[in-house]
Amino acid sequence: MKIYGEELHLKTNGFSDIHDITQEVAEIVEQADVAEGLANISAIGSTASISTMEFEPALAQDIRDNLEELAPKDKPTRHGDTWGDDNGFAHIRSTLMGPGITVPIHHGRLVLGTWQQIVAIDHDNRPRDRRVFVQVIGQ
Amino acid sequence: MKIYGEELHLKTNGFSDIHDITQEVAEIVEQADVAEGLANISAIGSTASISTMEFEPALAQDIRDNLEELAPKDKPTRHGDTWGDDNGFAHIRSTLMGPGITVPIHHGRLVLGTWQQIVAIDHDNRPRDRRVFVQVIGQ
Amino acid sequence: MKIYGEELHLKTNGFSDIHDITQEVAEIVEQADVAEGLANISAIGSTASISTMEFEPALAQDIRDNLEELAPKDKPTRHGDTWGDDNGFAHIRSTLMGPGITVPIHHGRLVLGTWQQIVAIDHDNRPRDRRVFVQVIGQ
Repeated sequence: MKIYGEELHLKTNGFSDIHDITQEVAEIVEQADVAEGLANISAIGSTASISTMEFEPALAQDIRDNLEELAPKDKPTRHGDTWGDDNGFAHIRSTLMGPGITVPIHHGRLVLGTWQQIVAIDHDNRPRDRRVFVQVIGQ
Repeated sequence: MKIYGEELHLKTNGFSDIHDITQEVAEIVEQADVAEGLANISAIGSTASISTMEFEPALAQDIRDNLEELAPKDKPTRHGDTWGDDNGFAHIRSTLMGPGITVPIHHGRLVLGTWQQIVAIDHDNRPRDRRVFVQVIGQ
Repeated sequence: MKIYGEELHLKTNGFSDIHDITQEVAEIVEQADVAEGLANISAIGSTASISTMEFEPALAQDIRDNLEELAPKDKPTRHGDTWGDDNGFAHIRSTLMGPGITVPIHHGRLVLGTWQQIVAIDHDNRPRDRRVFVQVIGQ
């Protein structure tokens, strides 16, 4: 069995800013030299999420608009009132969507649809240096 | 270590059509001949999701109704306006729920509750031949 | 390769009662004696979820309030009307959030942010003895 992990670093703008990280994950899978296995992609921190989508700007804005309806950024939260950091909405979005995903590796490649990219979404209310861990396991 | 993967094919109707795939996943786990491990179940494409539920028709309709409130099928989206395929809601639902789940295998069986089934949900706006990849890893 | 799994038992109050299980998961990772790998944490049953959050009481209440807006506990459901158990909202929340997460293990430790805890959320409408399975795989 082989296990190989690496940390990605992203400059993000917050408010559910979405970054396509498919190529970076694919390069780690290549480094791992695994034909069959799993790649786990996990956001480090409590105000970000990982998912997949057809990565194109119109849909990215649709997803941001939808998250704004499900957990509005200007709606007061107990978390914001208690800690004064005004990012309760970001925590709620992150917990709802979950911190990570696991994608199969088959014939040495990530199993994804043609228009399906792996994305990191930063929900926080300010620019950040965001860390994402990719752990590959297989043989 | 053993790794064994297989692709499932489903005929789906879209609009968050829900299919119980527990038996198909269990058969792949049996093929994998693994006593302890993990089974990853991932939808291929950007308009479907995998989750678990008590699979019965009343609840399936409740979940569809709820998704319709969270991301209505008739609400205009930039994605639909840009590409003309009118399935922005399906992409939003898929990204929100995530593309896949990982279920533990213990004593050779999927670790699930008695009334907990693995389901594939197709959110797209038309019938499709949907692919789901199941990757089992363990020993 | 090493695989080690254990079942956690929690006394929960329902209505999206949130429990920090990070320490319990970390102890299982230690038992597994794995330097690099993955830890899968899965709720057993169809009315609970696993995710991560900054575990503090104000945010826990914010998350409960938000889930109450997304899937209100007093809104009639077909599931409740059919089976008379009045917990349709709990099933909807569970399917939406998903049954489990997978967290990387690196240098023998769970890869989490400083203010990021692993939580089990019981959405059901009554106190329960809730089971969570933790499966660790790695080397």
